[in-house]
Amino acid sequence: MVRRIVIVGGGCGGATAAQFARKTDRTAEITIIEREPYPQYSRCGLPYGISGIIPDFANLIEAPEERLKKNRIGLHLGTEATSVDKVNRVVHAKTGDKAFELPYDSLILATGAKATVPPIKGALKEGGKPGELKPGVFVLRTIEDARGIQSLGHKGKRAVVVGAGLVGLEVAEALMVRGCKVTIVEFLHNCILAMVDEDMAQMMADAIAKHGVKLFTNYQATEILGEEKANCVVANERSTGEERTFYADLIVIATGQRGETELSKQAGCSVGVTRQITVDDRCETCEKGIYAIGDCTEYPDLVTGKPYVSGLGTIAVKMAMVAGVNAAGGDESLPKGFLITRATEPFGCQVAAVGPTTPQLEAAGVKPVIGKVRSFTLPDYYPGRKEIFVKVMAHPQTGKILGAQIVGEDRVHMRINAFAVAIQAGMTVQELAKLETAYCPPAAPTVDPITIACEAAKLKMARGVRPA
Amino acid sequence: MVRRIVIVGGGCGGATAAQFARKTDRTAEITIIEREPYPQYSRCGLPYGISGIIPDFANLIEAPEERLKKNRIGLHLGTEATSVDKVNRVVHAKTGDKAFELPYDSLILATGAKATVPPIKGALKEGGKPGELKPGVFVLRTIEDARGIQSLGHKGKRAVVVGAGLVGLEVAEALMVRGCKVTIVEFLHNCILAMVDEDMAQMMADAIAKHGVKLFTNYQATEILGEEKANCVVANERSTGEERTFYADLIVIATGQRGETELSKQAGCSVGVTRQITVDDRCETCEKGIYAIGDCTEYPDLVTGKPYVSGLGTIAVKMAMVAGVNAAGGDESLPKGFLITRATEPFGCQVAAVGPTTPQLEAAGVKPVIGKVRSFTLPDYYPGRKEIFVKVMAHPQTGKILGAQIVGEDRVHMRINAFAVAIQAGMTVQELAKLETAYCPPAAPTVDPITIACEAAKLKMARGVRPA
Repeated sequence: MVRRIVIVGGGCGGATAAQFARKTDRTAEITIIEREPYPQYSRCGLPYGISGIIPDFANLIEAPEERLKKNRIGLHLGTEATSVDKVNRVVHAKTGDKAFELPYDSLILATGAKATVPPIKGALKEGGKPGELKPGVFVLRTIEDARGIQSLGHKGKRAVVVGAGLVGLEVAEALMVRGCKVTIVEFLHNCILAMVDEDMAQMMADAIAKHGVKLFTNYQATEILGEEKANCVVANERSTGEERTFYADLIVIATGQRGETELSKQAGCSVGVTRQITVDDRCETCEKGIYAIGDCTEYPDLVTGKPYVSGLGTIAVKMAMVAGVNAAGGDESLPKGFLITRATEPFGCQVAAVGPTTPQLEAAGVKPVIGKVRSFTLPDYYPGRKEIFVKVMAHPQTGKILGAQIVGEDRVHMRINAFAVAIQAGMTVQELAKLETAYCPPAAPTVDPITIACEAAKLKMARGVRPA
Repeated sequence: MVRRIVIVGGGCGGATAAQFARKTDRTAEITIIEREPYPQYSRCGLPYGISGIIPDFANLIEAPEERLKKNRIGLHLGTEATSVDKVNRVVHAKTGDKAFELPYDSLILATGAKATVPPIKGALKEGGKPGELKPGVFVLRTIEDARGIQSLGHKGKRAVVVGAGLVGLEVAEALMVRGCKVTIVEFLHNCILAMVDEDMAQMMADAIAKHGVKLFTNYQATEILGEEKANCVVANERSTGEERTFYADLIVIATGQRGETELSKQAGCSVGVTRQITVDDRCETCEKGIYAIGDCTEYPDLVTGKPYVSGLGTIAVKMAMVAGVNAAGGDESLPKGFLITRATEPFGCQVAAVGPTTPQLEAAGVKPVIGKVRSFTLPDYYPGRKEIFVKVMAHPQTGKILGAQIVGEDRVHMRINAFAVAIQAGMTVQELAKLETAYCPPAAPTVDPITIACEAAKLKMARGVRPA
C-alpha cells in the first residue's frame, strides 16, 4: 500500500519535511496544504526584500513548484486545512469555497506562527475583519506584509517600528536603507534582550544610534492615532509615565509571534507550558502518526531543560528533517534539546548567540561564571581589524559552557558555531580554552577571542571569584 | 629565594612563555636570549610586509622592549646561547665577542627552526660562510630575509619560488602583489599537500592559475645558475625527466624548516623519531627543569597519536603558555595531542584544515569515510554568495571525526574551528550533523555546509559504503 503523507503548512518546515519524506519513501503520496498563495519562501529574507538588497520578493521562493512536481510532492496553495478527523485519518481542507478531503497515514503539522499585536488602542481597523490592522499599520510575517511595508516606506517617510527584537531591528534597518526616517519604540530597557544580555545589547543600541535611527527603550506603545490611516504612535515612558507622540507615515509592529495551534488542538494534540504543541524527540505529538514541527511547537532548551519556543527557521528545518523521515517510516531523532543558535546583523553590527542568556540562566537557577573579553578580529599589525566582544557563561562549579554571545562588526557569526559545538559536546571553559583555532594574519589572531574568553572564565573559577 | 627563569629564543614561543611566567611568579627573574636583533615579531606576517599590505616590518614587532621592561623581562638581543651547563644550571651566552653566564632554576628552550635548503647545485655562495646563500637566493624566516626579498622583488622582475607549501604560496602572492612575474616550482604533484588532500589543493592551484602565476608541479629544482648572482633555476619534470630553465631576478626557496636542536641536544634533552625535542604534556624535556616549546619540539598528533612537528605559531604559543606557567612553579598541561588547525588565504583562495590529511590517516592505518560537499556561503537568494567546499573525514566504523578541510573564497577559516572543537570533543559525524549553526541571510545559509558534509558522511556509513 502506498503511504499517504499530508503536511499542513508549506513554509520552510513543511517543505523540508516533504523533501525528507520523499527521500525516505520513494513511492509515498505526499501533499502540502498551504494557506498563502506562494510555495515555500524565506521569511528571514523579507527584510532584505523590503530594503531592495534582494531585488524581487519572488527571489525568496526556495521550493518552486517545478521542484516539488519533480519530487512528486502535491501542493495546494491558497488552501486552509479546516479540521482533522483523526479517527478516519482525514484532513478537511478548503481552497476558496471548494472543500475537499485528504486521507493520510502520517500527518505533519507545520502551521507556523502569526505575528502578535499587543493591545494598542487604534491598531486595528475600525469595523474590519477580526485582527485586521488599520491602514498604515503592519506586521512582518508574509510577502504580502513586506509588500505593504515597502509600498509606504519611501525616501523621506517617517517609519515607527514597535519592538526592538530581531525582526524589529531588521525591518528598521531595511526602512533606513530605503531612506525613511526611522524610530524604534521598545517596551524593555534595551534592544534584542531575548537574544543577548544587556551589556552585549548595548553595542547594538550604539550601532543603531550611529546610523541616525532613534531607539526609545522602556517605552510602552499605547495608542495609534489616525482615522482612515494611522499617522502616529503614542507611547509612555514606563518609569516616569511621560507621554511621547511619534509621527509616522507607516508603523510596523514587531513585538513577537505566537504559534498557530488551533488545528493541532482540534486534532487532539496536547500543548505544554508555553501553549505550543508538545512533541517527543521523533517530533511526534501525543497523537500517534501526527507530527508537529517548527514555530507551533515547544521543545526543551538543551541547557536549562525547560520547554522553549524558538521561532527559528534553522530549528524548524531540523525538526522537519526528523519528522519527514519518521512520517515516511524511517527513524530519526532530535537531540535532547536545542541550543537556540541565533544570529543577526542589522546596522553593521553582527550579533550571534547560543544557549540561554544570563537572565534566562538565572531564572533556571544557575548563576554563571562569566568570561568576557574585548579583542580584535585580526592581529594588531594587520590592517582592517575590527573590535569583537566575546562573552561565555559557564557553570560556576563545573565550568561547563552554558551559553555564549559575540558582538562585533566582522567575523562574528561563524565564531559562535565553535561554542555551539562545545555546548552540544558538554565541554567546559577549561577544555575550550585549549582549542587550537585557525590562524593566519589576514583571517584571525594567533590566540582567538573565543579561547581568551574561556581563559577569562577559567581564571575567575581558579581564583574562586563568585559569580557576580 | 628569587626564581631565575632563562628563555633561549625570543620568538612568539619565548616571548609568550616569558609573559606567562611573569603572570605566575611576580618576583621571578626572567631573561630572554635572542639571536636576532629584534624583539618578538610575527613571522607569519612577513609575506604581508613584503607585499606592502603591512607598510613597515617594524609593525610586525609584537612584544616591544618597553612592554618587556614593564613586565621586568630581561632581553639580550643579538645574543647566542652557546652552551648549557646543566650540572651548575648555567647558560653560557655571547653578545658579539662578549661572553657571559646566566644561571637558571628553570630553562625554556624556544630555539625555533631554520629554513631548510635542499641540495640544489649552486644554491650556496661559492666561498661563502657555511649555509650562506648565493646573492639573489633567499629563504623566508626572518625580517632580514624578507627585506632581502623585497629589495629585489620589484615590478616587472621575474621571481621563482621553489616550494608550493604555505610559506611558498604566501611569498609568491606577496611578490605577485608587488608586480613580479612569479613562477612556482613544486616537487610534489600539487601545492599545499601537507595541508590538505589533493582534491582540495587543486582549488588553490586553480586560484594560482587565475592570478597569472605559473605553478609547475612534479618538478625537482636541480640547479641554480649565475656567477655572482643567481639568474635562473633549472628543474626536471620528475616523471619524464624533461628539463626546464626558469629565468629569475630573485629566487625564494620555501621547501620547509628544521628545528634548531643543537643547544638542546648539548643540554642532554632527548629527541624523538622526527629528530625534534621530546617533551611531556607539561612541556618538560627529559631533563628536569628544562622545558622546550614550539618549532624545535615534537608532540603527538591528537588523532593519530604519532609525534608531529607542526611548525605553527599557534602551537608554539599554546606550548609557551604551558611551559611559562610550569617554569614559574605553576601547573598547566597540554592536551594529549594537537589538532594542527591551520589556515592560509593566498590568491583569494581561503584554505583551512584540522586533523591529519587523508594520506596521513591512511599512513596511520585508517581508511576514512569521507563526506564532501560543494555548497554556498549564503542562501541562494542572497547576493554575493560564494562557493565553498567542505570535506570531513570520519572513522569508518564509529563515525568519529578525524579531520576536516574547507576551501572557498569567503567565510572559510572560522568554519574550521567548529570541526576543531568537534575533534577535540571526540564527536562523530552523526552528532555534528545535528549541530545548530548560526543563520541569518547576510551571514550563512539555513543548513550550514559543515552539517551537510557530516550528513553526507553519515549517509555513506548508513548505506554501508566502503571507504574509497
